[in-house]
Amino acid sequence: MYKCNSSRLRGLIEQFSQFGATANGGVTRLSLSKEDVLARDYFCEICIELGMDIKVDDMANIYAILPGKKECPPIVMGSHLDSVEKGGRFDGVLGILTAIEAIRTLNENDIELEIPLMLVNFTNEEGARFDPAMMSSGVIASKFSKEKMLETIDKNGITFQEALQASGYAGEQGNRLTEALAYIELHIEQGPVLAAKQRDIGVVEGVLGMVCYEITVTGESNHAGTTPMSMRKDPMIVASRIISSLHEQLSKIDEALVFTFGRMHVAPNIHTVIPNEVVFTMDSRHQNPAVMLKVEKLLKGLASEESGCHISPVKLWGRETVLFDAAICNEVEKSCHDFGYSFQRMFSGAGHDAQYIASFIPSAMIFVPSIKGKSHCEEEETTFEDCAKGADVLLETVLTLQKKFSMGEKYTLNS
Amino acid sequence: MYKCNSSRLRGLIEQFSQFGATANGGVTRLSLSKEDVLARDYFCEICIELGMDIKVDDMANIYAILPGKKECPPIVMGSHLDSVEKGGRFDGVLGILTAIEAIRTLNENDIELEIPLMLVNFTNEEGARFDPAMMSSGVIASKFSKEKMLETIDKNGITFQEALQASGYAGEQGNRLTEALAYIELHIEQGPVLAAKQRDIGVVEGVLGMVCYEITVTGESNHAGTTPMSMRKDPMIVASRIISSLHEQLSKIDEALVFTFGRMHVAPNIHTVIPNEVVFTMDSRHQNPAVMLKVEKLLKGLASEESGCHISPVKLWGRETVLFDAAICNEVEKSCHDFGYSFQRMFSGAGHDAQYIASFIPSAMIFVPSIKGKSHCEEEETTFEDCAKGADVLLETVLTLQKKFSMGEKYTLNS
Repeated sequence: MYKCNSSRLRGLIEQFSQFGATANGGVTRLSLSKEDVLARDYFCEICIELGMDIKVDDMANIYAILPGKKECPPIVMGSHLDSVEKGGRFDGVLGILTAIEAIRTLNENDIELEIPLMLVNFTNEEGARFDPAMMSSGVIASKFSKEKMLETIDKNGITFQEALQASGYAGEQGNRLTEALAYIELHIEQGPVLAAKQRDIGVVEGVLGMVCYEITVTGESNHAGTTPMSMRKDPMIVASRIISSLHEQLSKIDEALVFTFGRMHVAPNIHTVIPNEVVFTMDSRHQNPAVMLKVEKLLKGLASEESGCHISPVKLWGRETVLFDAAICNEVEKSCHDFGYSFQRMFSGAGHDAQYIASFIPSAMIFVPSIKGKSHCEEEETTFEDCAKGADVLLETVLTLQKKFSMGEKYTLNS
Repeated sequence: MYKCNSSRLRGLIEQFSQFGATANGGVTRLSLSKEDVLARDYFCEICIELGMDIKVDDMANIYAILPGKKECPPIVMGSHLDSVEKGGRFDGVLGILTAIEAIRTLNENDIELEIPLMLVNFTNEEGARFDPAMMSSGVIASKFSKEKMLETIDKNGITFQEALQASGYAGEQGNRLTEALAYIELHIEQGPVLAAKQRDIGVVEGVLGMVCYEITVTGESNHAGTTPMSMRKDPMIVASRIISSLHEQLSKIDEALVFTFGRMHVAPNIHTVIPNEVVFTMDSRHQNPAVMLKVEKLLKGLASEESGCHISPVKLWGRETVLFDAAICNEVEKSCHDFGYSFQRMFSGAGHDAQYIASFIPSAMIFVPSIKGKSHCEEEETTFEDCAKGADVLLETVLTLQKKFSMGEKYTLNS
């Protein structure tokens, strides 16, 4: 067993947190921005120093490859260097940096690989500059049309295609990742569970299925002082009742179900005027499709009229639960055991590149604790100790897979 | 009894609706704007033609005076020419135009006045350009400090003082209205009651007392997908529960109580993020101070903590119920009787200049129906027939007061 160098990893995290550093200890490193390109350049420089070959595909995904003795598909580690605006120093980048630290540890221990090892940086995972999120893993997994993605624009009207060309990272479609023995992504949890339960590692079995609904309640605007209660059609009262009632009913379905009314727009939103429209969202997630069907049934079962208001729920989108490869998950768990690190089997409530890659490569994820569950904000935090434990587990899992694959062990895809 | 000329009144309304006309049949005539100044100029021109003297005070309030045989304080009619942005053709201006029509009817019938008659246009009633509303009636009633008002700025950074100077309507403080026998303001109802009950006239006995609270619910932002329900502090759930519960409890207090949750801000307002703060307003109005105390008791009695969130209600402002002069109200009602116009005694839920003028002059208001209760919007509508009935009642009330005052009848102030 090889332990990573935790102070070297810390130094690397601190170096990368300079690319797009914000005043309050976070980073703004939007995909293909100047800051992202600086981080990409440095990433390539390090990988080349480590003896890796660099390839770039037509979505600006960067692949660094350490050759193995065998000519065969690689074992892949990966994540993303981009961040949201005023995001944290760990989301995404930690998966890249723990992989670099793992390879440095391999090199300093003169470990010769049987199977090639690849490290991927996926472009525009956050979707913070160009919608949708996980754009480039989605394109190589045939979830999104490349042509449509090239046309998406950022808030300044710049297309993804223009940003791609300007970045210097527009590569060849032939370089896309198409085949690999395994894909492993380390990421911060972005939730409070590991920290609250004092677990070192999350063994991630899959990504929760989700639905997002937008509910529009339409009433009639009128003067707050002159309209008797009996003559009102007030969508705010109706919306509040719906949220309270849905909260009560959804809470009874399943303890693990999560649901959030995160966005609300009130029009005209003036204190002396009865609103004419209240629009709000409901995001809900669970691993079991049967539970998600119950959630959707509740939404679709909302009365279309209440207290003179019209109620219209529209499904904005949904995704099916993604299950990761059980055999790889078992190897991650075994690595935790070997190091004596506490762990927890769990699902990811957030989306990750791994959920698309899992459609054609046996995949799994490793979570490290997020203090207070904070992410996508400058307060995002993971202890360097926990980062190093994650790197240890990542390396150990890769080495075990190296051994098993090179001995010709059979792995069942998505078993 | 003299009936006004309804087609002449209609022509006048149509003329004034050209000052700041909007594409959809409304007006934008912000106080002291170019459009407002054009309306003011034309107002003065008409009044001079009708034999009236014009005076302007230091708040740009315009007073047109028709002399009487007696040298004594006048009977005053008044309202405002300014509008909100994309407001209607009737709010405010109708009180001025029905008064002009009343005076035209006096003149064509060669009626000689014993008591002087005054017509006032109050500056910045709407508060749409410069906050607060009813600014200039408020200043002459000593409710607001003139110095502070001069410093208020519009959204372009122009101070009220600058707008005042630029308008050409900066007059003398000595011209302010300080003494009068009566003040009568005709206005559209801005509510649906008269139209729904098919009444021609509202005899307005006062202006409802009101309170406006802002309730802040503070929780903790986190990822919608990764945060278990049991670990959330979700202010949206708590806010919805408070609104539903307040709605239920307030509904039981008194049938005539009105309350509105008109404004809500959710932060960060992203569908995939649990909000950390929900701020909403509650505006409530009733004529009985004891009822308003019950409302405030409910607000102040809100739990300060619920489901991990902090709840903080803050009173933004309030006003006491204003009672108009009972004797003048009786004369308005008698005028309705005499014409055979149906009427309804009522309170105004909206604020008007009369509520400040009532503090030093015996005052009352006359309401005409608002179709569907709409106001402060381009759809604001009152039939020309109803406008003319309002003018009839205004003129008849003024003539009755003329008679009674000139015979030395005693009126109890605010009886």
